[in-house]
Amino acid sequence: MSPPASLEVDLVGVTDTSAIFVPDPLTVNGVPGWREKMAQMPTGVAAACSSDMFKSPSCYNKPKAKRFDHLLSLEAKSRQSSTLKGAARFLKNPGLISLGGGLPSPEYFPFEHLDIKVPTPPGFSPEATQKTGEVLRAGKHDIQEGKSLYDLEIAMNYGQATGAAQLLRFVTEHTEVIHNPPYSDWQCSLTAGSTYAWDTALRVLCERGDYIIMEEYTFASAAETAFPQGLKALGVPMDEQGMIPEALDDLLSNWDAKARGARKPYVMYTIPTGQNPTGATQSAERRRAVYKVAQKHDIYIVEDEPYYFLQMQPYGGEGAKPLPPPATHEEFIKSLVPSFLSMDVDGRVLRLESFSKVVAPGTRVGWIVASEEMLERFVRTFEVSSQNPSGISQIVLYKLLDEHWGHSGYLDWLINLRMQYTGRRDSMVHACEKHLPREIAHWVPPAAGMFHWIGIDWRKHPGIASGKTRDQIEEEIFMSAVDKGVLVSRGSWFLADKSVAEDKMFFRATFAAASSEKISEAISRFAESLRAQFGL
Amino acid sequence: MSPPASLEVDLVGVTDTSAIFVPDPLTVNGVPGWREKMAQMPTGVAAACSSDMFKSPSCYNKPKAKRFDHLLSLEAKSRQSSTLKGAARFLKNPGLISLGGGLPSPEYFPFEHLDIKVPTPPGFSPEATQKTGEVLRAGKHDIQEGKSLYDLEIAMNYGQATGAAQLLRFVTEHTEVIHNPPYSDWQCSLTAGSTYAWDTALRVLCERGDYIIMEEYTFASAAETAFPQGLKALGVPMDEQGMIPEALDDLLSNWDAKARGARKPYVMYTIPTGQNPTGATQSAERRRAVYKVAQKHDIYIVEDEPYYFLQMQPYGGEGAKPLPPPATHEEFIKSLVPSFLSMDVDGRVLRLESFSKVVAPGTRVGWIVASEEMLERFVRTFEVSSQNPSGISQIVLYKLLDEHWGHSGYLDWLINLRMQYTGRRDSMVHACEKHLPREIAHWVPPAAGMFHWIGIDWRKHPGIASGKTRDQIEEEIFMSAVDKGVLVSRGSWFLADKSVAEDKMFFRATFAAASSEKISEAISRFAESLRAQFGL
Repeated sequence: MSPPASLEVDLVGVTDTSAIFVPDPLTVNGVPGWREKMAQMPTGVAAACSSDMFKSPSCYNKPKAKRFDHLLSLEAKSRQSSTLKGAARFLKNPGLISLGGGLPSPEYFPFEHLDIKVPTPPGFSPEATQKTGEVLRAGKHDIQEGKSLYDLEIAMNYGQATGAAQLLRFVTEHTEVIHNPPYSDWQCSLTAGSTYAWDTALRVLCERGDYIIMEEYTFASAAETAFPQGLKALGVPMDEQGMIPEALDDLLSNWDAKARGARKPYVMYTIPTGQNPTGATQSAERRRAVYKVAQKHDIYIVEDEPYYFLQMQPYGGEGAKPLPPPATHEEFIKSLVPSFLSMDVDGRVLRLESFSKVVAPGTRVGWIVASEEMLERFVRTFEVSSQNPSGISQIVLYKLLDEHWGHSGYLDWLINLRMQYTGRRDSMVHACEKHLPREIAHWVPPAAGMFHWIGIDWRKHPGIASGKTRDQIEEEIFMSAVDKGVLVSRGSWFLADKSVAEDKMFFRATFAAASSEKISEAISRFAESLRAQFGL
Repeated sequence: MSPPASLEVDLVGVTDTSAIFVPDPLTVNGVPGWREKMAQMPTGVAAACSSDMFKSPSCYNKPKAKRFDHLLSLEAKSRQSSTLKGAARFLKNPGLISLGGGLPSPEYFPFEHLDIKVPTPPGFSPEATQKTGEVLRAGKHDIQEGKSLYDLEIAMNYGQATGAAQLLRFVTEHTEVIHNPPYSDWQCSLTAGSTYAWDTALRVLCERGDYIIMEEYTFASAAETAFPQGLKALGVPMDEQGMIPEALDDLLSNWDAKARGARKPYVMYTIPTGQNPTGATQSAERRRAVYKVAQKHDIYIVEDEPYYFLQMQPYGGEGAKPLPPPATHEEFIKSLVPSFLSMDVDGRVLRLESFSKVVAPGTRVGWIVASEEMLERFVRTFEVSSQNPSGISQIVLYKLLDEHWGHSGYLDWLINLRMQYTGRRDSMVHACEKHLPREIAHWVPPAAGMFHWIGIDWRKHPGIASGKTRDQIEEEIFMSAVDKGVLVSRGSWFLADKSVAEDKMFFRATFAAASSEKISEAISRFAESLRAQFGL
């Protein structure tokens, strides 16, 4: 496939075409050079933009995605372009005065500038930020004054559903550098957060009565997003690496539409890395096997990946010498387990990306990656719902990620986070090794994410003799822990399909929030309540 | 009705109870005094909050809203509280260490502080802001350091679907001061913008196949939000004051469910003030009449009010001496046409509020007001969709509106906007009076909003003789205007029910964006194209 017409036009005037048409995939260090050759950034109010403006030519040497029209909901199929946005094409006429769109005049935005003080690599800690941090300023008319490609006049006004071109460029490049999808027509759109994107995905893909495929234990809110839309969850058995592909294949191969009262499921929700709640991370091999099953049964995969960059150093055990951080960006990127997106030859993956765990949840900005066909259906939905994520969040992220850090600084930040979370995870696992009674408690050190998943041999509970049920015992352990001063989450809260009788018992403990000392104290309290409960 | 239990508890320790239990409605000047008597602001991470914490006691001396369970969609009925949020109640236990929620630690939010430079009343213009504007700073740990009730540590983290208590208090007080709803159990929730709130309203209230009631010309995007959800629009005839209540009553009284293939509509979408696209503003009397019809047919009213504070000074005609702005806040508030919310004895009104036209669209923050019962269904939806509006937008709005301006300064700002828009409207109407051919063009000076609605006697078009249709003539006028260098919007774009044959012809011109000179030039171009088209 060749570059889209728009790109060809934009390349007119580029002198060193050899550098463009011998396409190498984009690298962190290649971004600045590629940017110089690219078309101009569209910087007008609510300027139309797409990832095609920002993808490197290497993307176009690949086959196009398959079409998935047959999976679209009635709602998604009936969405059309906005009438009013259609008139925007006349705005290009030179000298035209628009009395068309009802956009407020920027003179009425009561902000002269916005400053943020942020860390400068490698000084990422709050203490270092005080010393070496930089103040980034967004003025109202920076574009017109030649100071920046983005300013408050634009960020504070209405925008495109894809998000502002300025930030869309950054996430598009980031996606290419990290995932380099194997088909040509992938695109990104910013979202008002991944929860919203997932809600939208259900509207785009499902009809009432459908089943969706989830890990047997999954993020409770993701399931609760689906249920009121009349959807049911099909929980797929898991092991330490998450969803088991053979189990998935079995469930789908033996699907009895009549008995289930529903057609065979075709939408999968998965958290492949540092899964919530189990902490499981699917290996590359596991992902390839799951993808193969998805191809066999024509499953559309929604990969929710908030924890992708919370992949940690391998766990070495207490007293083990800590491994040094990845020495280069290349080494860091290679250390990451490949995403479904990176192996998606068909274009059957929607990737949900989030800044919540790697910058801040309060931005309420994420992005999605999908084939052009699917992405366009999402953008049509966003246009008449969220419109676009907060422009204030967008300009703050742009200033930090693009203007200040660049891709290189952002990767430094992510490596820093990796080391921070490694330390937290280690504290958690050490505390478990030190305190928890191994007679009844078992765990696997998580390789990614925020969660430690502690299994309990509930059948050894003395209450069994007096007829206590599994659920009662789970409740008792939970409450006894609360009484001892520690809050953990009950595994049953995360069961995707609550109609299935639970055989196992787990508790989820996060190492994201509390300090090492608090984690150790909390696990010791939890151990105490387990010992008391089990009479150990 | 007495104050809710939570409020009663909060009032323990208040010394001057007489001031509380002789309830006067809240006034702008009364806010500071009332705040001193109120319970403490909940300032923790994602702290639960509701408008009940912030309403004055005068609210509780009123009857409760009726229940509207029977209007809820299947989706809305099946929404439940979030499992994970339920566990948050244990967080109150003193000394408890939470390993529960997966909240990132604020040390990883790469922001030390955020500053905004904003105008100080009365110097609202960009020039005045440079001179007398103030820089407002939000630090990371301002709460803990006693500097503010809101900080980046909280704003950057996850939040409640209602929005942060800090900003919710402001909009609750504002709602009471301006609208003072006549029932007791009204509440507010922040939203990720009014477009999103309207999309959610349709999900909460409607089922596929339903009709919704709209003005015959309406905001095209509002209709386009509804259609893909399988909804159809029933357009109600309008006059200069918008929707005609008798026409509405007729349509509903004679509803033929069989012929229409749909049950009688029960959800109304209306833009009562400065309607988009017609500029019409419903008078108080008109609103009362519409409300009465709504009561008769058990209609639930969604009032979309982005232009409420773009109510302008009465139009005096060219050369008329400009009227002075309202002298006091009381005079200003009295000058505003009463909202549906202010006359909503039943609790059958959902008010969509927006900061887009009065602060900046890029905030993507609005709020809704409704009865507790209805609002709770919205909050349940937000929890698993948008979650909450951007925390960065929220803290920026809080700093500006609450800490810097206060209600008094915000009303000053709104009065300033009123005068600005009055000037713009006058320029537009003067230009029309000067340039447009009255033989075929007619208009009414709008009393509110951003839009001027110009009617055209298309039957006088010479093309009629050669068999041109109304649609062709509209298209020709539109294109001829574009050719002359002015973009206006075609009235037909705004038809709610596109299956109805249009008899009239209008063009919408906004005075929000262009300068007075540009407006005059644009209207003169439009006049030129009209003269050319009509051979005048």
